[in-house]
Amino acid sequence: MAKDNLTAVLYGIEDMRLEQRPIPVIADDEVLLAMDSVGICGSDVHYLKEGRIGDFILTKPMVIGHEAAGVVVKLGKKVTSLKVGDRVAIEPGVPCRYCDLCKQGKYSLCADMVFCATPPYDGNLTRYYKHAADFCFKLPDHVSMEEGALLEPLSVGVHACRRAGVGLGSRVLILGAGPIGLVTMLVAQSMGASEILITDLEQHRLDVAKELGAHHTLLQRRDQSAEEVAAIVRRTMSGPPDRSIDCCGAESSARLAIFATVSSGVVVIVGMGAPEVKLPLINALAREVDIRGVFRYCNDYAAALALVASGKVNVKRLVTHHFDIKDTDKAFETSRKGLGGAIKVMIHVQPRNTNNPVKF
Amino acid sequence: MAKDNLTAVLYGIEDMRLEQRPIPVIADDEVLLAMDSVGICGSDVHYLKEGRIGDFILTKPMVIGHEAAGVVVKLGKKVTSLKVGDRVAIEPGVPCRYCDLCKQGKYSLCADMVFCATPPYDGNLTRYYKHAADFCFKLPDHVSMEEGALLEPLSVGVHACRRAGVGLGSRVLILGAGPIGLVTMLVAQSMGASEILITDLEQHRLDVAKELGAHHTLLQRRDQSAEEVAAIVRRTMSGPPDRSIDCCGAESSARLAIFATVSSGVVVIVGMGAPEVKLPLINALAREVDIRGVFRYCNDYAAALALVASGKVNVKRLVTHHFDIKDTDKAFETSRKGLGGAIKVMIHVQPRNTNNPVKF
Amino acid sequence: MAKDNLTAVLYGIEDMRLEQRPIPVIADDEVLLAMDSVGICGSDVHYLKEGRIGDFILTKPMVIGHEAAGVVVKLGKKVTSLKVGDRVAIEPGVPCRYCDLCKQGKYSLCADMVFCATPPYDGNLTRYYKHAADFCFKLPDHVSMEEGALLEPLSVGVHACRRAGVGLGSRVLILGAGPIGLVTMLVAQSMGASEILITDLEQHRLDVAKELGAHHTLLQRRDQSAEEVAAIVRRTMSGPPDRSIDCCGAESSARLAIFATVSSGVVVIVGMGAPEVKLPLINALAREVDIRGVFRYCNDYAAALALVASGKVNVKRLVTHHFDIKDTDKAFETSRKGLGGAIKVMIHVQPRNTNNPVKF
Amino acid sequence: MAKDNLTAVLYGIEDMRLEQRPIPVIADDEVLLAMDSVGICGSDVHYLKEGRIGDFILTKPMVIGHEAAGVVVKLGKKVTSLKVGDRVAIEPGVPCRYCDLCKQGKYSLCADMVFCATPPYDGNLTRYYKHAADFCFKLPDHVSMEEGALLEPLSVGVHACRRAGVGLGSRVLILGAGPIGLVTMLVAQSMGASEILITDLEQHRLDVAKELGAHHTLLQRRDQSAEEVAAIVRRTMSGPPDRSIDCCGAESSARLAIFATVSSGVVVIVGMGAPEVKLPLINALAREVDIRGVFRYCNDYAAALALVASGKVNVKRLVTHHFDIKDTDKAFETSRKGLGGAIKVMIHVQPRNTNNPVKF
Repeated sequence: MAKDNLTAVLYGIEDMRLEQRPIPVIADDEVLLAMDSVGICGSDVHYLKEGRIGDFILTKPMVIGHEAAGVVVKLGKKVTSLKVGDRVAIEPGVPCRYCDLCKQGKYSLCADMVFCATPPYDGNLTRYYKHAADFCFKLPDHVSMEEGALLEPLSVGVHACRRAGVGLGSRVLILGAGPIGLVTMLVAQSMGASEILITDLEQHRLDVAKELGAHHTLLQRRDQSAEEVAAIVRRTMSGPPDRSIDCCGAESSARLAIFATVSSGVVVIVGMGAPEVKLPLINALAREVDIRGVFRYCNDYAAALALVASGKVNVKRLVTHHFDIKDTDKAFETSRKGLGGAIKVMIHVQPRNTNNPVKF
Repeated sequence: MAKDNLTAVLYGIEDMRLEQRPIPVIADDEVLLAMDSVGICGSDVHYLKEGRIGDFILTKPMVIGHEAAGVVVKLGKKVTSLKVGDRVAIEPGVPCRYCDLCKQGKYSLCADMVFCATPPYDGNLTRYYKHAADFCFKLPDHVSMEEGALLEPLSVGVHACRRAGVGLGSRVLILGAGPIGLVTMLVAQSMGASEILITDLEQHRLDVAKELGAHHTLLQRRDQSAEEVAAIVRRTMSGPPDRSIDCCGAESSARLAIFATVSSGVVVIVGMGAPEVKLPLINALAREVDIRGVFRYCNDYAAALALVASGKVNVKRLVTHHFDIKDTDKAFETSRKGLGGAIKVMIHVQPRNTNNPVKF
Repeated sequence: MAKDNLTAVLYGIEDMRLEQRPIPVIADDEVLLAMDSVGICGSDVHYLKEGRIGDFILTKPMVIGHEAAGVVVKLGKKVTSLKVGDRVAIEPGVPCRYCDLCKQGKYSLCADMVFCATPPYDGNLTRYYKHAADFCFKLPDHVSMEEGALLEPLSVGVHACRRAGVGLGSRVLILGAGPIGLVTMLVAQSMGASEILITDLEQHRLDVAKELGAHHTLLQRRDQSAEEVAAIVRRTMSGPPDRSIDCCGAESSARLAIFATVSSGVVVIVGMGAPEVKLPLINALAREVDIRGVFRYCNDYAAALALVASGKVNVKRLVTHHFDIKDTDKAFETSRKGLGGAIKVMIHVQPRNTNNPVKF
Repeated sequence: MAKDNLTAVLYGIEDMRLEQRPIPVIADDEVLLAMDSVGICGSDVHYLKEGRIGDFILTKPMVIGHEAAGVVVKLGKKVTSLKVGDRVAIEPGVPCRYCDLCKQGKYSLCADMVFCATPPYDGNLTRYYKHAADFCFKLPDHVSMEEGALLEPLSVGVHACRRAGVGLGSRVLILGAGPIGLVTMLVAQSMGASEILITDLEQHRLDVAKELGAHHTLLQRRDQSAEEVAAIVRRTMSGPPDRSIDCCGAESSARLAIFATVSSGVVVIVGMGAPEVKLPLINALAREVDIRGVFRYCNDYAAALALVASGKVNVKRLVTHHFDIKDTDKAFETSRKGLGGAIKVMIHVQPRNTNNPVKF
């Protein structure tokens, strides 16, 4: 086996380093993966800039990266579900499997979750990485490694739409046309939503949303109140939305979601912002508009893969930039500044298309 | 107002007559409709042939027809949701609004339901028909009257898929490629099913299913056991189906659905056949495969309309034949014998396209 | 029929008057009731003090009262479910029966709800009152009229516990030991909750809660932070509560509910306070703790009656004071000031026990 | 450690032997238990008589017993949730923790479940037994080892009532007053059912049901048709049951459950009988009465323990006989023949009350 295990390690705020790391030794239920594609997520950038997200604080060097796909190069003794050479998408969190939440099928809330690139656990922007075999999803030949990496944000969209209860004939309001807002929109379409309005503060992001099938786009101005925008949303759609999904995490967007949503509807909040927010709570309560959070995903990867593999959802448009792992710094620079209309920046650990039977 | 109210009345077994009926007088919450398009349903044919369906027995002459669309010509005093000239699809059952089931949102099971062309209640294959305004759904200009009439079977498909819990990534088995099987397939696609296998005993029906997007079609032979076919289904799909929807109502298809469905999956039975069937019940119970019936629809018309209006589902392909109301006999003949590859036979109470801004 | 129809009418802030009103004329689906017992609710007091609750504003004289029971004295032509002499509890809101929410079984959110003593609709603290027959619930002989009146707050408790998903083995935190907190506790017990902790700022209310079966009571101090109290709650119970029901409506109690509730649990807020509150929203979102409101009740009266009639719940202890309708002023005074340890004050339109086969 | 590991081993039909077995070696996530109490279940007797249940066939000697409680005597290296000396109830099935069903919280349907005394896996009627620590439930001091063993059938009742959706105000029909019927009744009471009717073919079993709180008991005669009995059930209760739970598994009881249940209600079938049954399926389908199976339990043990520990449910009455492990033959004889009014027969691996701070 190769000795080169170049790895992107975050040492602290604004201190990312490429360095060699030992190739991991696998347990019986794990596989060793030769990594291929790793997308940059907003949370990766956040750790680079701030060294923390909420209570997750970087206290020692941590390998970055968690939106990833790789190729199986070695099998643990008990692994029968995969074979060497399989191309897989990686669901980046592995739960304890023993606690009540795990047994109840809510493993994403497991207190002992080991999650890539969330302190203190290492991520997978590295040449060789080990992972629990049952959290690796075999890609069919016609699905590219890049799409495999994109199953991570797509799974967030799946989880958000499921938590929202999007269904046949749903009128959906999506706040924010960044990567998560866009994948959420794609998922909502595929679940039968009949009308989607998406908002953002920047027109070029709304243009992409339109291109991807948004029925309505709404450019918000910072000087508009949530009540004002809610009124516009209700006028623009054929009626008030029954599902509103906030992919921003700002106080203003949570407020807008509450004001806009129809009685007995659901507000789902994916993006997370300030620890304290001021909400028109009584407005939601008196109309039985439920407020639900989304934390990552849970039993959603298979559906995300099915969406891509069946052609129901095309996520390729989201990838705007490609970099080699050696240019990780430039990749992060592009992502954090949104250079060149960046939506999703992909880092390639192997030369592009090495593992793609059908080129990306 | 016109005096002509030509009406198709079923007097008994094989005794359908066209005759003049008085134009109905509307109540305050009703509208008078000039009927346009009325589709023939299997149940209409069944009443013609047998004079009954289960406990519903024809004991006096009954106007036939319940898959219908018309144009509002008069408003009851309290009606504000519609206006004269509105083109509407008609949800054919009006519940009591007072019983527990009505209050719980399960109005389709209301014991006092008044349902078109179900004894003793008259249907709407007639020139003038009155109906509760809130069970009329206004069609947008680009949706034809024929599509309006087709919302009735489509709503059955919506209800079946909702009862089955079809969702993102579902693997769906549909038994029977008649009109209900086909609309159920179209709805399942639009709810995010990633793989659909549809079975039938006749290849030409499967050909239509394939044309409409079935991933797999399976021609069953009468000499195959349910276990055998279940094994083929499981081999053909990427895994056992998690939702199986029986649109035949035969004992053999219910058995197949049970054997094929994955543990913790759902079997939904739409079609209804013999009063007594022999089932491998323990197979379902021990694997917690739930068995659920479908009786008509409930709060499903709006979603069915949204599917058609948004273009997500195209039901036009189902209409294979057109007849004028004066040729009702020929229309029924075509439908009951499946002449000319008949799927859905449409009867026109007014000349075709009279009320369609966009021609059918 | 008697001519006396003494009625308690709220003319404005601090302006309640007893006056004669005409005896109502009933519609075909209504009954005329000789009122018996009417409880005073916090909202009645609020209208007396403020002339409004949120957007519901008193702009003309309004009959007060909505927690009530009476005796049927006349039947509308279509009424078959009741007979003259039936003793009934009155569910005080009658919805439109035509809108989408009504058809979906969510009639309590109907925009055209006619609700007793909510402007502009009259209540039922009067000698003769008419009501939709299907919103009257016949009481068995052994259930008193007072208990019939108490079905109203009890139904709020039923709705709150159902919205919370209280079930077998639930650990329930209830905030506030007023009438609503107490009935919610009683309902939670009867649904299988295995551990209940109830908080309040006043010990005498907690004493009643203890008497009624609370496993733990916690006297809160105003100088404690929500985080501090949440830590005490978690230490006192065998683990963090999975259902927290806020019956206060204060910002501080909503905050406490969020901090205390276990990951994937549910916070239900019954009491409604300030239009804007500051919440630790991210704490709820990141742990997928859902936040749900409660607006009155919906399909809950029958269950509330079953609880009382079966003896599973004893609400008699809640009634601390009795007044004749002529002493309505004193009754309100007692209720608003909590005189004599007042929990629930009952106003009698007829002499006590006139209609009770078993004395209260 | 003691060397004596006397064990009850089923060698084949009517061939149970007591023999010494090696004391098990534990894995890191397991504990070693000194067994205390083991109840005899109908399935144990069935294996003794038939050597099989459905597809589970005894092909080699198997230790019998799965309703059990013991005392922790040794901890695996990773076990932190228990300590030596803890008295625990044993949930007898341990799933794979890796498959889709496990991750979805439906571990009872895991295809690789290792379940006590289900071929080919050994049970726990033995002096020393090892088990996954997270499937051991610590008993509080006031709960006896016998009650710990009874959590097994009680969990079946919990699962059945949860699958049925028993709730506040439910009218519940229970078919069969054997141990499972009785625990199901106790659970239904504690979940808020307001009315329970229980049927059986033997009066002495109904007498116990009455003693335990059944509102109605109905002695069925073998010559009555399901329709006839359903009519009696509906007349006896205040209305048709909305939840019917069949704890017999006979064709006749499944038929009765369907005929009796109200439209939109639920039939749950716990007991499993013949592989093929004749059902009035159309009756269920056309009224949307769902049919659901129950296979063991899943995330139900904690609730069962909470029911017993809180005193909400008293299962002691079910234990009618006690035997020492050395008298296992007599114990089985008593159970299979129902000698002396046997309901639940308990086998003691240690002298009675050795481990009970509060005597049974």
